[in-house]
Amino acid sequence: MKAEIISIGTELLMGYTVNTNSSVLSQKLLDMGIGVYFQQTVGDNENRLLEAIEIAANRSDLIIFTGGIGPTRDDITKFVIAKYFQTELVEDSDQWNKIQTYFSSQDRKLSETDFFQSLTFKNGTSFFNEVGLACGSAIYMTKDKHNQVIIVLPGPPFEMNHMFDHYAKPYIQSIFQKEDAIESSYLNFYGIGEAQVAKELDDLIIQQTNPTIALYAKPKQVTVRLTANAKTKHEAQQINQNLANDIINRIPSAFLGYGQDYLIEHHVIDLLIENNKSLSIAESLTGGLVLESLTNIEGVSKILKGGFVTYSNQAKIELLNIDPQIIEEKSVVSSQVAIAMAENCLEICHSDLALGFTGVAGPDELEGHPVGQVFIALAKKNEATTVIELNISDKPRSIVRLQSKNEGLNLIREYLK
Amino acid sequence: MKAEIISIGTELLMGYTVNTNSSVLSQKLLDMGIGVYFQQTVGDNENRLLEAIEIAANRSDLIIFTGGIGPTRDDITKFVIAKYFQTELVEDSDQWNKIQTYFSSQDRKLSETDFFQSLTFKNGTSFFNEVGLACGSAIYMTKDKHNQVIIVLPGPPFEMNHMFDHYAKPYIQSIFQKEDAIESSYLNFYGIGEAQVAKELDDLIIQQTNPTIALYAKPKQVTVRLTANAKTKHEAQQINQNLANDIINRIPSAFLGYGQDYLIEHHVIDLLIENNKSLSIAESLTGGLVLESLTNIEGVSKILKGGFVTYSNQAKIELLNIDPQIIEEKSVVSSQVAIAMAENCLEICHSDLALGFTGVAGPDELEGHPVGQVFIALAKKNEATTVIELNISDKPRSIVRLQSKNEGLNLIREYLK
Repeated sequence: MKAEIISIGTELLMGYTVNTNSSVLSQKLLDMGIGVYFQQTVGDNENRLLEAIEIAANRSDLIIFTGGIGPTRDDITKFVIAKYFQTELVEDSDQWNKIQTYFSSQDRKLSETDFFQSLTFKNGTSFFNEVGLACGSAIYMTKDKHNQVIIVLPGPPFEMNHMFDHYAKPYIQSIFQKEDAIESSYLNFYGIGEAQVAKELDDLIIQQTNPTIALYAKPKQVTVRLTANAKTKHEAQQINQNLANDIINRIPSAFLGYGQDYLIEHHVIDLLIENNKSLSIAESLTGGLVLESLTNIEGVSKILKGGFVTYSNQAKIELLNIDPQIIEEKSVVSSQVAIAMAENCLEICHSDLALGFTGVAGPDELEGHPVGQVFIALAKKNEATTVIELNISDKPRSIVRLQSKNEGLNLIREYLK
Repeated sequence: MKAEIISIGTELLMGYTVNTNSSVLSQKLLDMGIGVYFQQTVGDNENRLLEAIEIAANRSDLIIFTGGIGPTRDDITKFVIAKYFQTELVEDSDQWNKIQTYFSSQDRKLSETDFFQSLTFKNGTSFFNEVGLACGSAIYMTKDKHNQVIIVLPGPPFEMNHMFDHYAKPYIQSIFQKEDAIESSYLNFYGIGEAQVAKELDDLIIQQTNPTIALYAKPKQVTVRLTANAKTKHEAQQINQNLANDIINRIPSAFLGYGQDYLIEHHVIDLLIENNKSLSIAESLTGGLVLESLTNIEGVSKILKGGFVTYSNQAKIELLNIDPQIIEEKSVVSSQVAIAMAENCLEICHSDLALGFTGVAGPDELEGHPVGQVFIALAKKNEATTVIELNISDKPRSIVRLQSKNEGLNLIREYLK
């Protein structure tokens, strides 16, 4: 079964909006055991959308459209699909009621195009939009004896996600129901390259059948995805787990943990909770990135005492009580300043552990220190502070900051594991 | 002239990597006056890539490929393009030298597929990869009397960007050289909806010819893009400026500033520098997002004194000296706590202004306060503190945090403008 995603919106072709829907939908479908073979993006233009539908209709079994179902005259997705497949659009009365209620609650007047948001395919299935105004729609289509399932979803990512999970996913499952259960398991490894993981798993990758094995690389992290099918969910999970045990045994020191979006942040928070250790952070070049990435994760309040962003020398002196003489003598980009930041942060926050970050994010050098030179210290209550130096050359500001964050968190991982 | 982008990579179809290259390339081309009409994404599969090339070759004049030129057997982009257009690949000796030097410096052995990275189209133009190992390549192709310009770029965004700016852009300009200069200008408005901006500019949008007008919506922000062509660069800029003045006069209070990626962060930093005011930040629910977004911008060290992330009550008490009784009596989610955070932060950091953020990011309620209830205070030296309450309903954690950040920065904008 081949799936295809068509994203509609001139803003995507103008490059002002990044198309996250395509990747999110692809991942969700893959988790259901459905492979996406093509993604297309077209503007709000009837002829070019018709062309995209024609291409997809001739090669794909499941076509998911996202975008172009809002209240302006540019929003033509449902109309053009109906035209291509020679069907009609009818009113979804629940959605139309929601639209009317919304406008009257806002004391706003409805226009004709607002009504368009409640249109759905005749003889199809309407997806009520619980978090927006435009309903989605799905239908079986046949042309030239070829069957397709057509699904139309909103463009705004939050609405698209909600509607997919609550309506489109069960709809797809009901149609493409398989006898087998399909289960995926994600194994995350840190500080090892994709090529190295592939080498360690070479024989497994060559002989893979059930589960299948896929590798994904992120900065400093590799995720191995196992997908098994079996008669029952439990059996599929067991097949995955057997292979997972084998894989982890081959590269145990790099193993972070299980989970689709399990990052080093999650792992470090898990480790800290497990070891009953609290953390505080003092950031300079990373400017809040470390704290922001940790507080993105629920449950962090159990271990995070607090944090400082001391971007300037003055803030380092005033908020963290750094001795100005150290900065003067050793430079602000030095192991000594990183150590002082971590140790003073630990003391002020009464935490068990504290990280201190100083360095040059770029784009310009700082006091003769090159872009990418970074010092990170980990202070521990009643133990000696450790410090590392990074030299991240040829990389933009955003990557220097990101790698610094990861390497800092890795210091905690190395210490606690 | 129609441009098309083809992204190659199974990781894109599996949804594990978001396709940022398509949007970045589209925007860069648009800035050169070249419209992208289609984007396609295919996996590392010869037949499906051939199909994508066939589709593009029959409708587009400029086809840009990105991805699939690395050192593994999956990297087939150049080979498949050469096959489709019946041309050959030859060695780029500069790139091959760089690859060899790199491997010997790392004491690593070269394999046959490493050499593939130095291949380029015979009779074409090779683009040296200064920040990676695989060269890009470009060529005029003719099939069935139809001419195309084919450009192949690396997949990693940093390499793709660098190669586009330094090699592909001048190459494209040399081929599609226009007599006219094309200039774009970006006007940013805050706190006004896209529909409202469109209404205010209705007559201008209807009669647009030169400059053309395009609207882009971001959270709480609308960008108006003007693109003019004229005999000279200066003349094109002047045409844009005349219309820009008219537009700003229609909605003066919402105008933030000029620039393609000019956000409220930039505007607030500019305003603070202009007014010679320093800032400090105390964050709770935003957990470092406000500090991180400010320190993302160069030059922020001129105005940012420092910041605190006090995610827990204890951190609020210990780092910011918040009176525990206020938290006890008024709840941590209250205007009183936001005010105390801002005022104490101002005092500790000796800044002219300070923001304090407290609220519920979600997904769970906090002490009976609903997700999305947020209090933000702006403390000012020798002036009364202002405080606002937000109620951001039905939104995920990330949006609650983002809107809180924007509204907090807007308090500074309102105060200083």
